[in-house]
Amino acid sequence: MRDKTFLMIPGPTPVPESVMLEIAKHPIGHRSSEFSKILERVYANLKYVFRTQNDVFVYTSSGTGAMCAALENLINEGDKVLSLVLGNFGNRWAKIAQSRGAEVEKIEVETGEVIDPEVLRARLAQDVNKEIKIVTLTHSETSTGAANDIKTLCSIIREHGALSVVDGVTSICAMECKPDEWGIDVLVSGSQKGFMIPPGLAFLVANERAWKVYEQCKHPSFYWDWGAYRKSVQGASTPFTPAVNLFVGLDKALEMIKEEGIENFNTRHARHCRALRAAIRAIGLELVVKEDKNASHSITSIYPPEGISVPDIRKTITQDFDIVVANGQNALKDKIFRMGTLGFVCDRDLISAIGALEATLYKLGYKFELGSGVATIIKELAK
Amino acid sequence: MRDKTFLMIPGPTPVPESVMLEIAKHPIGHRSSEFSKILERVYANLKYVFRTQNDVFVYTSSGTGAMCAALENLINEGDKVLSLVLGNFGNRWAKIAQSRGAEVEKIEVETGEVIDPEVLRARLAQDVNKEIKIVTLTHSETSTGAANDIKTLCSIIREHGALSVVDGVTSICAMECKPDEWGIDVLVSGSQKGFMIPPGLAFLVANERAWKVYEQCKHPSFYWDWGAYRKSVQGASTPFTPAVNLFVGLDKALEMIKEEGIENFNTRHARHCRALRAAIRAIGLELVVKEDKNASHSITSIYPPEGISVPDIRKTITQDFDIVVANGQNALKDKIFRMGTLGFVCDRDLISAIGALEATLYKLGYKFELGSGVATIIKELAK
Repeated sequence: MRDKTFLMIPGPTPVPESVMLEIAKHPIGHRSSEFSKILERVYANLKYVFRTQNDVFVYTSSGTGAMCAALENLINEGDKVLSLVLGNFGNRWAKIAQSRGAEVEKIEVETGEVIDPEVLRARLAQDVNKEIKIVTLTHSETSTGAANDIKTLCSIIREHGALSVVDGVTSICAMECKPDEWGIDVLVSGSQKGFMIPPGLAFLVANERAWKVYEQCKHPSFYWDWGAYRKSVQGASTPFTPAVNLFVGLDKALEMIKEEGIENFNTRHARHCRALRAAIRAIGLELVVKEDKNASHSITSIYPPEGISVPDIRKTITQDFDIVVANGQNALKDKIFRMGTLGFVCDRDLISAIGALEATLYKLGYKFELGSGVATIIKELAK
Repeated sequence: MRDKTFLMIPGPTPVPESVMLEIAKHPIGHRSSEFSKILERVYANLKYVFRTQNDVFVYTSSGTGAMCAALENLINEGDKVLSLVLGNFGNRWAKIAQSRGAEVEKIEVETGEVIDPEVLRARLAQDVNKEIKIVTLTHSETSTGAANDIKTLCSIIREHGALSVVDGVTSICAMECKPDEWGIDVLVSGSQKGFMIPPGLAFLVANERAWKVYEQCKHPSFYWDWGAYRKSVQGASTPFTPAVNLFVGLDKALEMIKEEGIENFNTRHARHCRALRAAIRAIGLELVVKEDKNASHSITSIYPPEGISVPDIRKTITQDFDIVVANGQNALKDKIFRMGTLGFVCDRDLISAIGALEATLYKLGYKFELGSGVATIIKELAK
């Protein structure tokens, strides 16, 4: 049905009406005192959401832009980078590092698995000459729905002395993440995820250890240059013309997050993810991430039942129920489907999504106890 | 008055209501067939607006992003770049080139002046060993309102053999620009200018000569990488999550530009600029760009009358008449003010702007024949 689409992909995600109405307003001048006041609030509230005392930079770009903004301010040609890869987005760190001429080594895991802290500890222990300058890692891997124990991994990296550079694109807002407390040196995220606004803005926060490495970077990229952004944040400005309308929307969305409270926001995502996973199991489908403790709180990847194809599931759930779920990426295409529960998602959405998934599987001929998923999710949500 | 602001700055510019209403719609999935159809239209219509047979890439970024996307796909450390500088934005090319380790030489002119083709010809003639690899230049220099004769300059660059890399941020849509016919090798622009949509998207078009240089680039930037964008354009897709809402708005705006016709769109801007300049002269104010033939068709820079300050003019015209005009940048701050007539601007807007400027100067005590500016602009617009 026209205008009825419910996005359950890992971005863009649903946007609250009050945010869309702010975005719909005529753009204002980005050098006006009116916009400066908005920026002041946005920069302050971003520190709250990112749970950091450091400045949070906002780039007008995709989330990948913030990933480039991380490495293109740190890497010199020939630098050694260790990339911990859970999937497509962990691999993206490696590609960006290579594009700057870094020597990249990867630790890769199977689909749905996470990095074993002991494997990382052992690898870093071998690096007696401290050649590894940067370790890139992913909090919530969007392509599989697996989530690393960032706190433990970053403490191991800190012991070694390398910089930890973390992709929090689908984790910030959805999952507990405390960069200052956990010793995350650089953390990035994107707007069309937990932040409940459309795509087009990306975020980066760096600590003093990262700034020291930045100061040694021979060719920081002009567009992402941290120096220019730090100066701008402190002057309640932006270095270049920003996506004004998205900033105005972000201002509204951050206010909503603050009202809910970042801890409650995190808890809601954890609850939704746990409930969804229980319902998927009740229906008899297999989850890509086996253990709950390794599961992202924003995206859940599911194998289709035998004999039913991913394209059929995706097509039916969209045509009949106006829900969009994501396909797998690259080698996982048509092998898994992914349901996002990221940002502006309430308990009702979870019940309707599981109901619609049951109806879809029923229509496609899958044999299971109809209603079992909905019964489970109702019970889980009531806990 | 609330919601009455008319932006006469060189971006963000006014956005049509029908475009804002498209942008206000809930984001759709960027990998959906619905979005793919929008992209197909957008990519086709961008070729029309840019008057090129080459693919036009759309970056989710500020206009400066597209400038980085130009040079960060071409320059290797140590390359020699000649930057033709009319002001702040010409200088930005030089800074970006330097940030990539290029050896940059500048030809700079006084405020309001343009590059003399013979000066360029003479400099390039000295370069007998063809060491200069790239010449950067600006079509419409937003900081002064001067506009280069790009056609002549690019033909001189082509004779030499260097690549011409042109900033068309405030010229595309507003001024005639024919990259294929004029031999412009790389051309960039931004969305919040002549394109009548809010900031957040930027454009780049490169020809086959530029692609040959790209192929020699050791470290093309991952986010701006032409290779990834060309592949995406051909597949009616984008490499990373794009600013979906702005694309939907762009689709609508391009349709409006096509309906008006790009030639008519250019002519309207030329007419408005000429009429505005005549009215400014009639009021007795001095223009920064002396000769009409050197004037941008999107932005007009004006010296305040003696004894009246730029901040007072800007404050009064905003408070009393809800018009925002721009200050000068850097060394020109408080020395000049700038009136943009870029994008969604009709004849009535010109009359009201000159009327409001007259009223502002009258209130601030400037002695002149009240009504002389409006009388002139009415006559000019009737031509």
